[in-house]
Amino acid sequence: MNLDLMRELSFSTDSKIVLLVMDGLGGLPDESGRTELEAADTPNLDDLASRSDLGLSRPLGTQGGVSPGSGPGHLGLFGYDPLEYVVGRGILSALGVGLELGENDLAARINFATKDESGKISDRRAGRIESEKAARLVERLQSEVEIDGVEVILSHEKEHRAVVIFRGEGLGDRLTDTDPQRTGLEPFTVEAEDGSGSGSERGAEVANEFVAQADRILAEESPANTVLLRGFGMHPALPGFSDIYRLSPAAIAGYPMYKGLARLAGMEVLQEGEGIAGEFDTLRESWDDHDFFFLHVKYTDSSGEDGDHRRKSEVIEQVDGLLPGLLDLGPDVLAVTGDHGTPAKLMSHSWHGVPFMLNSPYTLPTAESFGERTCAGGSLGAFAAAEIMGLLMGNALKLNRYGA
Amino acid sequence: MNLDLMRELSFSTDSKIVLLVMDGLGGLPDESGRTELEAADTPNLDDLASRSDLGLSRPLGTQGGVSPGSGPGHLGLFGYDPLEYVVGRGILSALGVGLELGENDLAARINFATKDESGKISDRRAGRIESEKAARLVERLQSEVEIDGVEVILSHEKEHRAVVIFRGEGLGDRLTDTDPQRTGLEPFTVEAEDGSGSGSERGAEVANEFVAQADRILAEESPANTVLLRGFGMHPALPGFSDIYRLSPAAIAGYPMYKGLARLAGMEVLQEGEGIAGEFDTLRESWDDHDFFFLHVKYTDSSGEDGDHRRKSEVIEQVDGLLPGLLDLGPDVLAVTGDHGTPAKLMSHSWHGVPFMLNSPYTLPTAESFGERTCAGGSLGAFAAAEIMGLLMGNALKLNRYGA
Repeated sequence: MNLDLMRELSFSTDSKIVLLVMDGLGGLPDESGRTELEAADTPNLDDLASRSDLGLSRPLGTQGGVSPGSGPGHLGLFGYDPLEYVVGRGILSALGVGLELGENDLAARINFATKDESGKISDRRAGRIESEKAARLVERLQSEVEIDGVEVILSHEKEHRAVVIFRGEGLGDRLTDTDPQRTGLEPFTVEAEDGSGSGSERGAEVANEFVAQADRILAEESPANTVLLRGFGMHPALPGFSDIYRLSPAAIAGYPMYKGLARLAGMEVLQEGEGIAGEFDTLRESWDDHDFFFLHVKYTDSSGEDGDHRRKSEVIEQVDGLLPGLLDLGPDVLAVTGDHGTPAKLMSHSWHGVPFMLNSPYTLPTAESFGERTCAGGSLGAFAAAEIMGLLMGNALKLNRYGA
Repeated sequence: MNLDLMRELSFSTDSKIVLLVMDGLGGLPDESGRTELEAADTPNLDDLASRSDLGLSRPLGTQGGVSPGSGPGHLGLFGYDPLEYVVGRGILSALGVGLELGENDLAARINFATKDESGKISDRRAGRIESEKAARLVERLQSEVEIDGVEVILSHEKEHRAVVIFRGEGLGDRLTDTDPQRTGLEPFTVEAEDGSGSGSERGAEVANEFVAQADRILAEESPANTVLLRGFGMHPALPGFSDIYRLSPAAIAGYPMYKGLARLAGMEVLQEGEGIAGEFDTLRESWDDHDFFFLHVKYTDSSGEDGDHRRKSEVIEQVDGLLPGLLDLGPDVLAVTGDHGTPAKLMSHSWHGVPFMLNSPYTLPTAESFGERTCAGGSLGAFAAAEIMGLLMGNALKLNRYGA
């Protein structure tokens, strides 16, 4: 996907686009021979399929066999080549706990850990310290750490895990982890991977100063008397949807990480209602305020991760039941897909092509149902997820012709 | 296919992968309307197809309409973008006659030719000199040519064709041919295409010295009184399978060129048994020693080159008969494909997508038979051959997730 080309060709109209993402939608056949989507009773999705373009979306484009994480999966859906635009783990963690990120933010993941008297790590997870206890330590660090010229923002995740943001001018993220990855070793100091005078050198100074102060503050604590830092990342400078596509985009999602990813792309994150139905309610209520809606349903992925073929089908059926209400709004273009597969059989993200359906007045329907295998024979073929935004824009008649 | 990404994500497990390549597998319909593969009676391949992912492998990726040679065809299968990694013709010829190549080897193809009294080429192929006679001349050159600091290794191919390797430090291969491509012209001297002091300059000196000595040695011979050199190439520095994929790869092939190509990728070349069945025997005997097997069947290609639609079907049927023995070994992932098409109708390599089938526990079967047109509707779509290694690795669960 060439974003410069999109920027050159796109223009604003009144037409409205909805991108409905069921996380981890793609599946594999169980003993019955049917995938989760194929087994689900989905009269509304099937009816829509009979009026839609079908295809298989490849999350990482031509990287066959590679399964994407949620970050790369969504960047692809949003039109950013996930191999070109990389979101560091620290950034994803920060998004996951709902921290708002700015361009001067350097994020890292924190593990509370245990150091022995000689300074060597004896437990990389501080005995998987209880969440309440760790949350209290995060509060202590938040109130006591002070670094010149840098705002330090901490947030607890779960058990021994937390996240830190260093907010300040001129920080870089080409930084090595302090986590030695095994016990019996001293933590590493953070090193800049690029040359002297770089922002990363300043980032390393700040991170090492943070660890030194944390060590003093936590010295008398047990079992968490130190912190390990890893997954440094800066806020990625993604060109935004309004800039590239002249859209006024909104995101509706139940989980912080997806809200955060949408915010990276410049979407306005709407306050969602309760559960999947609540998300659809929010869409209805905000219909007049935006021309692009990203609606994210999480539970397809989580039931796949749990290995629950049937429950994943039921989540899909629930979405199917909400579809008529969405169609009543009259979207000009509606796409239904996932960010990757999460087959119950694999209990994890997968590398397979993801069912994709696009409804607009300008489609070439090829089947009467929405499933992996009807999509495999569809008029869109197998294509890179990063092309989806272009397809949506084209079908919404929001793109000028390329060349005379 | 991004090899750095593969290197970053791959890890070693006990699972085993087999890549079964029927050279030139892809075909075209004859009068009966069926391709060689479709016409073949293949109960075992068809049964496997009903449990496999199907797709069309594009040997040169997005270069529609271009037919690959055996070198690019196999580089693609092995995961190397054939437009990025180039194997010179001299190198392929050297591999084809079974010469083992090292990193300091500069190879070129030799044509024995006839020069008239004025030094102009009167026959570029020395009247297609008989093989025995040419072989004797190769022996003479091998015993009489001496170049300071360079080992000269010659091998006869067939009729007027032979191959030479110059083995020595600091040679380069940006070299022009001496073959003037038509009669009535003097042979060109070899020139370096890059700057002074380059390895290619030293390569040119060596090659020109070789031609000068050959001219003296062959002066009294007839009709072959000179040599033309073309297709200069160094041993390509391909990153190997064990480095990229953490595999212990083995190759089973009946012909030197394919053994040589496999060796370039760092595969161990196993001593194969007699004929196609013998190759399958070798696979069985070596099953415990490797976790990746490339098994190459040549005769699909040669029968296609001969324009023999029926014989090509029979070769495929022979492979089909050997399939159950292979499946009994219990490969975790088995792919069956070709390096390109060789339709009997064309009597040559072709540009078409090549039938590809991948069997693993994680497939989305779409058809009950293995053929060009069932593959065209398959869940893998049409994809670049260079993605195959990623697909094999993913299905073998030997790849970490990309990104969080």
